[in-house]
Amino acid sequence: MSSTDKFILHWLDQSRSHRILWLFETLGLNYELKIYKRTKEFRAPKELEKVHPLGKSPVIEIIREGKEPLLLAETGHIIQYVVENYDTTNILKTSTPEEKELVDYYLHFTEASLQGFLVALLVGQIAQTKAPWGTGFLVKLVTSGINSQYFQPELLKSLKFLESQLAKKSTNQYFVGNKLTGADVILSFPIIDNLFSNPARASTLSGGEVNLVRDFPNLHAWTENVLKLPSYVKTNEIIDKKLGSKL
Amino acid sequence: MSSTDKFILHWLDQSRSHRILWLFETLGLNYELKIYKRTKEFRAPKELEKVHPLGKSPVIEIIREGKEPLLLAETGHIIQYVVENYDTTNILKTSTPEEKELVDYYLHFTEASLQGFLVALLVGQIAQTKAPWGTGFLVKLVTSGINSQYFQPELLKSLKFLESQLAKKSTNQYFVGNKLTGADVILSFPIIDNLFSNPARASTLSGGEVNLVRDFPNLHAWTENVLKLPSYVKTNEIIDKKLGSKL
Repeated sequence: MSSTDKFILHWLDQSRSHRILWLFETLGLNYELKIYKRTKEFRAPKELEKVHPLGKSPVIEIIREGKEPLLLAETGHIIQYVVENYDTTNILKTSTPEEKELVDYYLHFTEASLQGFLVALLVGQIAQTKAPWGTGFLVKLVTSGINSQYFQPELLKSLKFLESQLAKKSTNQYFVGNKLTGADVILSFPIIDNLFSNPARASTLSGGEVNLVRDFPNLHAWTENVLKLPSYVKTNEIIDKKLGSKL
Repeated sequence: MSSTDKFILHWLDQSRSHRILWLFETLGLNYELKIYKRTKEFRAPKELEKVHPLGKSPVIEIIREGKEPLLLAETGHIIQYVVENYDTTNILKTSTPEEKELVDYYLHFTEASLQGFLVALLVGQIAQTKAPWGTGFLVKLVTSGINSQYFQPELLKSLKFLESQLAKKSTNQYFVGNKLTGADVILSFPIIDNLFSNPARASTLSGGEVNLVRDFPNLHAWTENVLKLPSYVKTNEIIDKKLGSKL
């Protein structure tokens, strides 16, 4: 790593890439933003496959002097690698091995467990409105059945788990220790963008019986704290300006 | 870490925990195996929630002299932590930072991307056979529609990506470098257990049009290589003996 290294973030609207922008802003990295917009079917555009064969976002490139550019994919991996190699002033780094272990856990848990249930619920929701292979009513009946049997209980279990983790800490402002870490960065998308900032979606995804603010007071306090962090505010401003509209 | 540290693996049949057993066997760790069996609805039993609030497997405990036991969850995180701290003779460790970066990528990719599509497809498949909220025919119609629109193309894209990664290497026996690493360990469950060792499930999950051996020759060669590794053979023998039947 070197202080002359430059970054490119391939950013897709309404995607997991939002927090990588926040990561770059937090660490003050020298980055360029390439913006992609979803198709009307809410999918990533084909151009992203030219960057990485899986065609997803976030993908980042690290441009290094005298070395091949490094292409990194998978949100948890990107956060882990960038913090390890480019957080030179310990803005996000933890101070004990125990805290580092816990951040690593959240980097895996968020994408491998929590986000999977949200994607499955979201796919079912999109299927209900697009349904080209049948009627919306039937699709709704079946996806609601599958969701209530499997994905919704799993999502709620994960949210209760996160709530309990914050509740047992002396501060509910951050997930690990008393400071911002990669754990807060990775959890910001599913908790804030997918749920707290989108009450209509949260209600549909959770089956309509959950009141996030009432049922998850610690997650709510954490959300309120993140939303007012200067780096997070600036991240949203950058995107509002680039896209010409609120997310 | 210390050579006197002991491990407990909470192992669930037909689950992601199988490869953690393989990890422990590969590293020659001093471990105890606690076996859990799925309910008739193919869910994890409630007892697992006493071990970890999310009630999933794998979960491991590391019993350390003079310290609190350490509870670890999430497959990618467990592999990363155990290799980093307990692979004292470099059986799985990589030799360059580039290889380490690539293993870390696969630890995230496998659970955050590949496994998510497989779980969604599997849930749809179970819903078709259990369907208490409607008829199997309707559930099959709708889940088939959703699967063919979203989850199957994503699964195939991931498999093609893995195939291309092996194809460009000088050996298709391992995913990173010329030796066994955590990447092979984590990929063994989705690729071998879920797909190559279960042609009927593979055919259903992929929509019936895929012939794994014909379409993915490098993944097939890698599978054949892993299946004959002594540590992998021994892992399967241990489970066959404990469960009294083939997996």
